[in-house]
Amino acid sequence: MSNPIVVEVTRGGLVESRHRGALAVVDTDGAAVATFGDVARPVYPRSAVKALQALPLVESGAAEALDYDPAELALACSSHNGEAVHINAARVMLIKAGLDESALECGAQWPQLEEDRAALHLAGEKPGAIHNNCSGKHAGFLGLARVMGVETRGYVKPDHPVQREIHSVLEAMTGAALGQDVCGIDGCAIPTFAVPLSGLAKAFAAFATGEGLDPGRAEACSTLYEACTSNPYMVAGKGRFCTDVMTAFGDRVFVKTGAEGVFCGAIPELGLGIALKCDDGGTRGAEAMMAGVIRTLLDVDEDQSEVLARFDNSPVTTRRGVVAGHVRTVDGFAELVRG
Amino acid sequence: MSNPIVVEVTRGGLVESRHRGALAVVDTDGAAVATFGDVARPVYPRSAVKALQALPLVESGAAEALDYDPAELALACSSHNGEAVHINAARVMLIKAGLDESALECGAQWPQLEEDRAALHLAGEKPGAIHNNCSGKHAGFLGLARVMGVETRGYVKPDHPVQREIHSVLEAMTGAALGQDVCGIDGCAIPTFAVPLSGLAKAFAAFATGEGLDPGRAEACSTLYEACTSNPYMVAGKGRFCTDVMTAFGDRVFVKTGAEGVFCGAIPELGLGIALKCDDGGTRGAEAMMAGVIRTLLDVDEDQSEVLARFDNSPVTTRRGVVAGHVRTVDGFAELVRG
Repeated sequence: MSNPIVVEVTRGGLVESRHRGALAVVDTDGAAVATFGDVARPVYPRSAVKALQALPLVESGAAEALDYDPAELALACSSHNGEAVHINAARVMLIKAGLDESALECGAQWPQLEEDRAALHLAGEKPGAIHNNCSGKHAGFLGLARVMGVETRGYVKPDHPVQREIHSVLEAMTGAALGQDVCGIDGCAIPTFAVPLSGLAKAFAAFATGEGLDPGRAEACSTLYEACTSNPYMVAGKGRFCTDVMTAFGDRVFVKTGAEGVFCGAIPELGLGIALKCDDGGTRGAEAMMAGVIRTLLDVDEDQSEVLARFDNSPVTTRRGVVAGHVRTVDGFAELVRG
Repeated sequence: MSNPIVVEVTRGGLVESRHRGALAVVDTDGAAVATFGDVARPVYPRSAVKALQALPLVESGAAEALDYDPAELALACSSHNGEAVHINAARVMLIKAGLDESALECGAQWPQLEEDRAALHLAGEKPGAIHNNCSGKHAGFLGLARVMGVETRGYVKPDHPVQREIHSVLEAMTGAALGQDVCGIDGCAIPTFAVPLSGLAKAFAAFATGEGLDPGRAEACSTLYEACTSNPYMVAGKGRFCTDVMTAFGDRVFVKTGAEGVFCGAIPELGLGIALKCDDGGTRGAEAMMAGVIRTLLDVDEDQSEVLARFDNSPVTTRRGVVAGHVRTVDGFAELVRG
């Protein structure tokens, strides 16, 4: 089965490149509201499920015990640019847990923005694990480990109590059996479990509404939803899809990207969860798809429409800024979503 | 018509992402020797035809008049990293033409490698047009304009004598009619004309063998082929497919990448030209395909096999260097190529 072509990259009068993908939009019962492509095939959600991976931190009471504030909780759910505001918050999270960045096991990564890389070069420094886009998530894992009273070292391993807690939450939220057969290693060293898009969408419908969850988990979901949508800059950073879209939509929309062209999201006023994957792993394809889905499902104002158009109808420019083409969802995309 | 899935990106025991593509391998008569996917659809070759775009510079005698050496001719065919060796050679080409970098109309671009960006930051400088990966090609265009005795300003425009010369060569070499309907603007501001993969492959079969060309053009092709394969570092740079493969194969193989997942190439001992495109524009997909094609068509030694495996069976690693998966052509790829 071939997933449909859903995003085209144009140049001049021709389509230069094409992205295929699959989409699941489901309600809080897990019933499909909009779907195309193969939504039953397991997909590694990568960073798109960071908000679910942060649930044990909040639900256990560890976040409260450590006095993590909403911006720090948003960072625990983030794939951040490694800007100063992100690094500083990650350091504070570690300090609150009685640790420092030497406890991080995510590996070093250069910051996303040229200006932040320049600052490191000018200081004669190399990036560390604190600059890794996952450092907030890892700081949260370490905080949970401390409050649980378990060894922090090895917190990235599948059999560590922190990862076992997360595994249990992921199975419960997605309704998928997450065995070794669907387990890979994520870029930041933790386990990533492949889940059908339908299961991911179901998890985010519940995450954003609390429906079908026991009160403790529903409250933890609400806390994290509110933290992310109120602190969108902490979830990603300058120029990023998740930050720009959540800034434009306030608490009406939750979105979170993952590597290899994955997105999860939710629109609580419609009671819907969303999960999609661009087949080839392309971020530009996944961003255009998610922007197109939001535009199809919600009435958007002019400002919101402009923000979505940065990703679905995004100009392809020359080095001198001349528009040579666009990245956009295909004609008929809205009908494809509506089914 | 769907192009086949030809490259898979694995993680753990699963395929995480998939690249589709099309391939044309033709002989010097333009007859298909190996082909899959839609090879009749026009494809923007982008930088993959830089060696053809450099033909007027050599064929006209301008390169000789300006005393461009083989390394400089290779740079005229390059998409370089913007390393010091590339920048310096581009500056020398401009000096030999009585110009400087202010004549370049390609736009500024940061160098590819972190170490070269760091050097700019530490010097308090911004990148210029000289750092653009196309600066060698543009220096060649400017050299040709000078020897032709035409205005250099506006040399990137479709109606400039330099671009008209290139257009004429591209039509003759590919056998395709290249009208406005297939013309886009490339990232460096020049026209790029979409050509069927079969036409691109035919052009490179002729480029690498001289067969079917008049003596003057055949000699110019030979000069550029020799320049590139003898100076592979000038064609790209550190860690790059074109440099690594042409270093490993000497003059047995010519390869040149283009943006949006295009490759052109040739294997003169077999009398074959090669052109391929990864549908989604992904470089990793295009590189795996080209490595797989070379491995299928040629007997390769152990060292050459190791170089090809850097791109077809390339490890996907965590930030700490643990192998989490691979980028590789699909099982049965060789059979798909052989047809």
